[in-house]
Amino acid sequence: MEVIEVLHMNGGIGETSYANNSLVQQKVISITKPITEQAIVDLYCSTIPRSLCIADLGCSSGPNTLLVVSELIKAVERTQKKLGHQSLEFQVYLNDLPGNDFNTIFKSLPSFQENMRTQLGSGFGPCFVTGTPGSFYGRLFLANSLHFIHSSYGLQWLSKVPEGVKSNKGNIYMASTSPPSVLKAYYEQFQRDFSMFLKYRSEELVAGGRMVLTILGRKSEDPSSKECCYIWELLAIALNEMVSEGIIEEEEMDSFNIPQYTPSPAEVKFEVQKEGSFGIDCLEVSEVNWNAYDGDFCGSDDGGYKVARCMRSVAEPLLVSHFGEAIIDDVFHRYREIVADRMSKERTEFINVTVSLTKQG
Amino acid sequence: MEVIEVLHMNGGIGETSYANNSLVQQKVISITKPITEQAIVDLYCSTIPRSLCIADLGCSSGPNTLLVVSELIKAVERTQKKLGHQSLEFQVYLNDLPGNDFNTIFKSLPSFQENMRTQLGSGFGPCFVTGTPGSFYGRLFLANSLHFIHSSYGLQWLSKVPEGVKSNKGNIYMASTSPPSVLKAYYEQFQRDFSMFLKYRSEELVAGGRMVLTILGRKSEDPSSKECCYIWELLAIALNEMVSEGIIEEEEMDSFNIPQYTPSPAEVKFEVQKEGSFGIDCLEVSEVNWNAYDGDFCGSDDGGYKVARCMRSVAEPLLVSHFGEAIIDDVFHRYREIVADRMSKERTEFINVTVSLTKQG
Repeated sequence: MEVIEVLHMNGGIGETSYANNSLVQQKVISITKPITEQAIVDLYCSTIPRSLCIADLGCSSGPNTLLVVSELIKAVERTQKKLGHQSLEFQVYLNDLPGNDFNTIFKSLPSFQENMRTQLGSGFGPCFVTGTPGSFYGRLFLANSLHFIHSSYGLQWLSKVPEGVKSNKGNIYMASTSPPSVLKAYYEQFQRDFSMFLKYRSEELVAGGRMVLTILGRKSEDPSSKECCYIWELLAIALNEMVSEGIIEEEEMDSFNIPQYTPSPAEVKFEVQKEGSFGIDCLEVSEVNWNAYDGDFCGSDDGGYKVARCMRSVAEPLLVSHFGEAIIDDVFHRYREIVADRMSKERTEFINVTVSLTKQG
Repeated sequence: MEVIEVLHMNGGIGETSYANNSLVQQKVISITKPITEQAIVDLYCSTIPRSLCIADLGCSSGPNTLLVVSELIKAVERTQKKLGHQSLEFQVYLNDLPGNDFNTIFKSLPSFQENMRTQLGSGFGPCFVTGTPGSFYGRLFLANSLHFIHSSYGLQWLSKVPEGVKSNKGNIYMASTSPPSVLKAYYEQFQRDFSMFLKYRSEELVAGGRMVLTILGRKSEDPSSKECCYIWELLAIALNEMVSEGIIEEEEMDSFNIPQYTPSPAEVKFEVQKEGSFGIDCLEVSEVNWNAYDGDFCGSDDGGYKVARCMRSVAEPLLVSHFGEAIIDDVFHRYREIVADRMSKERTEFINVTVSLTKQG
């Protein structure tokens, strides 16, 4: 399976689309907003550029895509007005893998531009928005062409399923029952990928350029910790049920692994320091409830439904490419019940690792 | 009708898609290739840039989209190798209106990159391809950010149907029976649009930047000349037939006009000189048979079928937005027969006006 060809959030704006099921990701953007805004305001104040090139990596397609961009631009415009500076030109690059639904984003651009003008006045911009399809584990932009890079909930996705995870039987991700060799293979893939990511981004950023990354991660130093693996373990339960009922072949199940790694803050810090292009301005951990729709502990079946839909909008293309289309409704029906049951019994949270970086001169 | 919201070539890769019915446009690109290549090679030799930013405006979605880009890049790479220079980075901006099918282009990018590497060797590039949705009658790119702009068969499209064409009864475009006020309204809309286009592009190009535009046009100084209006006149015949049969209401027919203007070389030259940002390096006229599939006069019904399909892939969204979906098959069935009949009796050609420009210092 080539991740670049398969991985994308569900397109369109229908019931199972990512656009309609990405409230967790929206909440994460809102939680990390102070860090992101601080970084772009610092950048603006230290360089006072006449034009500002911003890239959002793993932008997906939905209300979150332009939410980040509009918050960043508003923060700069506020600062620029406060300082009595002239308006500047914005160039925004929206990046995701080629299978992402860019058409839906592009069709919403005229109304996005209209809203921005309404909110910021006619002196705003101009703001040029472009789509850049491709993997962020390769180069995406001209050398020294970007001022600011943002990525939220993208970098936990690996460039591929690590080699050497064949022995991960009965699991689809790292789990407490995974052999140490599997955990090692996952971690090493993360190290290679993240270090490559940092190298390429440092080539693309101007000197002093800034980057804020939020990665689905964990607090614990144990990579198979429940706090990051549980959501996939419950999906594995659903799939294993279907294996035992003969709906899915055991071999198929054994050869399926999620191309993801949920790092700890220490692991992120270690790679940044080892790669050496960036200085760390800030490294923070936050939490968001699986059911972002309710602020608090939520045990209703409705919560299970929403979490299952959210995970479906993220994981469906991966599952379809491996297991085929036919089993999908069944998988997520089971998953929904399992998730609802667990949510009624325990506190379930995603952990976010956010790091704010400056390219060294 | 807002042209920016309605106008786009038929998306996808199906039977009536633009991707499958754009051989005329491909032939035009091949006819004008010497002019385009000369311009980009001149640009390269006079500036020896370390990175080259190229925009294709009105790129559509299909085999032609990346054809132009690949020819431009190959011309530069040949020159760079001949001169013993180092490889350079390419940034390609593909522009079209927001309704264009960018997803289909983006999905083809991995294989495009692969082909380029095969043809040019591993030393090629990197080449970064992005999509820029928006009207080229507004600003699309940062100031002084582009080296080369190309556009083929885009600029005959106006930003809107001119005001004051209500008296164009029975016609859908300029025609010999159009009142002089209609011809004037069309021409003035072209002047406003083209002059705005030149102004915005001059802001976006670096000093010495180049631009090659090929516009569907005419040789004659008569704007209602058959050489440019006939193809739409035949569509009007089909629509008028349907009016007389009560399938289309007369009022609907009278309020439909194509947002297009097919200028003469003199009109193009006049606007360029009046606007003043560009010097003209070359201004040429060429012809391409309606039925690009055959080099020569082609009277077969098959020719009519292909021409009708080509026009359908271009005009369907405009017609659907005005008349609704239901009549479309009927319209193009009639159109095909009318076109086939005329093609069997006379020589039918599109006229292309190509102008190569340099931004004045």
